[in-house]
Amino acid sequence: MSERADLREVGLRDGLQGLVRFIPSDVKKAWIDAEYAAGIREMEVTSLVPPKLLPQFADSEEIVRHALSLPGLVVAVLIPNLKGAERGVALRAHKMNYVLSVSEAHNLANVRRTTAESVADFKRVVALRDAVAADRRPKVGCGLATAFGCTIQGRVDEDAVRRIAAEVAEAGADEIAIADTVGYGNPKAVARVFRAVMAEVGEIPVSAHFHDTRGLGLANLHAALEAGVRAFDASLAGMGGCPYAPGATGNIVMEDAAFMLEAMGFSTGVDLVKLIEVRAVIGRGIPEIKLLGNLPIAGLPKTFAPTSVAA
Amino acid sequence: MSERADLREVGLRDGLQGLVRFIPSDVKKAWIDAEYAAGIREMEVTSLVPPKLLPQFADSEEIVRHALSLPGLVVAVLIPNLKGAERGVALRAHKMNYVLSVSEAHNLANVRRTTAESVADFKRVVALRDAVAADRRPKVGCGLATAFGCTIQGRVDEDAVRRIAAEVAEAGADEIAIADTVGYGNPKAVARVFRAVMAEVGEIPVSAHFHDTRGLGLANLHAALEAGVRAFDASLAGMGGCPYAPGATGNIVMEDAAFMLEAMGFSTGVDLVKLIEVRAVIGRGIPEIKLLGNLPIAGLPKTFAPTSVAA
Repeated sequence: MSERADLREVGLRDGLQGLVRFIPSDVKKAWIDAEYAAGIREMEVTSLVPPKLLPQFADSEEIVRHALSLPGLVVAVLIPNLKGAERGVALRAHKMNYVLSVSEAHNLANVRRTTAESVADFKRVVALRDAVAADRRPKVGCGLATAFGCTIQGRVDEDAVRRIAAEVAEAGADEIAIADTVGYGNPKAVARVFRAVMAEVGEIPVSAHFHDTRGLGLANLHAALEAGVRAFDASLAGMGGCPYAPGATGNIVMEDAAFMLEAMGFSTGVDLVKLIEVRAVIGRGIPEIKLLGNLPIAGLPKTFAPTSVAA
Repeated sequence: MSERADLREVGLRDGLQGLVRFIPSDVKKAWIDAEYAAGIREMEVTSLVPPKLLPQFADSEEIVRHALSLPGLVVAVLIPNLKGAERGVALRAHKMNYVLSVSEAHNLANVRRTTAESVADFKRVVALRDAVAADRRPKVGCGLATAFGCTIQGRVDEDAVRRIAAEVAEAGADEIAIADTVGYGNPKAVARVFRAVMAEVGEIPVSAHFHDTRGLGLANLHAALEAGVRAFDASLAGMGGCPYAPGATGNIVMEDAAFMLEAMGFSTGVDLVKLIEVRAVIGRGIPEIKLLGNLPIAGLPKTFAPTSVAA
């Protein structure tokens, strides 16, 4: 039996949040549907920030409701604070991903709070979760952003990542995501940080969120995989490159990541041919975005035997 | 002290051989000079094939002579056969890289010989090397192409790679390069094949030649690094994408590979700022080529401390 490795689509949130133009809800839904058909079973479909701050997510309610109609799909939402969590609970999202930055400077710039204040806020989110009836209680994840460095602050102490992971684990996180928000990570740092965090938090699942800013995304994924990580954020076509900021780059490319995992013998549940077809849906709906990724251009190797189908 | 890892420029051969237009010798020389100035100390500068087969390399003699004028640069040439080796010896190239394919079908298509016939030919090249006076005797490397699969034959037996590596080691190769010619490799296969070959050939250096066809180039480099490989082929700006064949992709991107190794604490001897500047030289001389790579767009992290300078 092949071992499972999960890929989670985050482009609908992380990829779209940099776009100025509002992407029609129907485009977002078509993207969700197509990727669901390709086998992806977890998606962060929106961000529950106030629409006046990020108008891109003014249709959060509609998108979450649509995603919830797909059987077996884990519908995740990003929540910036307790208010977002309250909205997430009301919407019955399956998972709410809280994010705080290990970099104090980034956290202040992002949510105007110290990292310690964000940890305290996260505890209130957990308390809210625990007050929900067990049969519809959402999972609460905590993302540790800028875990490998920060464009504002610069260096981020690796031990601070471990320490904050311990705090949010102790607070009751259902999952911890370690994020290389700005693409400062490298395989050695990834191995060190993930191993330290996983040793610290015991049974709580630790997932990885990498950006391919400097081309090291899949090498970092490989290092995390070796450390024992089995859940990875990615975005279809590497969405996240902002058309107005040439240097900005997106998450690791879902197609290439899925190919790598399947070729290595992990079962992702993904049908790569169908996954590549999702690009056409995005290409039609968001033509201003450059679709990244190498596998879709080269095609599958002649020798490729997908693990997921064989399993 | 940081451990050394070597990057060798192969774009002047592997990158240019797909171009129909003859690239002026002055452009090639300017490329060599700029990358030498950035710290690269080994380059495969040309292919000693008959110019009527590959007119791109009609200036081999001039290019080799120019490269030999740069102190400390290991000047390597690709040799397709004994005739090429004779030319390489006459030119006093420091290293001659013979290539054979583990895939019989690819070897037949490429050099109209069986793999066994190529191994026999390689032995004649070694005999030629040994007949050269010791003070100007070149090194002879042997590249094992299509080691992870072949677009013609499909599957390539991993044990055949080990066996042929043993044969060319026994024959007297100074170095063995394992090549993922068509981008079929993945980190697990890379780890298996390199470990098996290195266990087989003992002290003979084993280097890695990866293409980034499906985006796994640096993940494969990471797997090879962990297997103990310390020498990697790469090409500036990922040269090798053929402007007439949209699906064709080049070697791993030198800039991103150098960044990864330096960030991981390996000393490559490369000045990344100067390395990125080489792109302008290529961009001016070969404007039809798309310059690949992520680091040059994103820039170095604020926190980056190069290992090579610190060492």
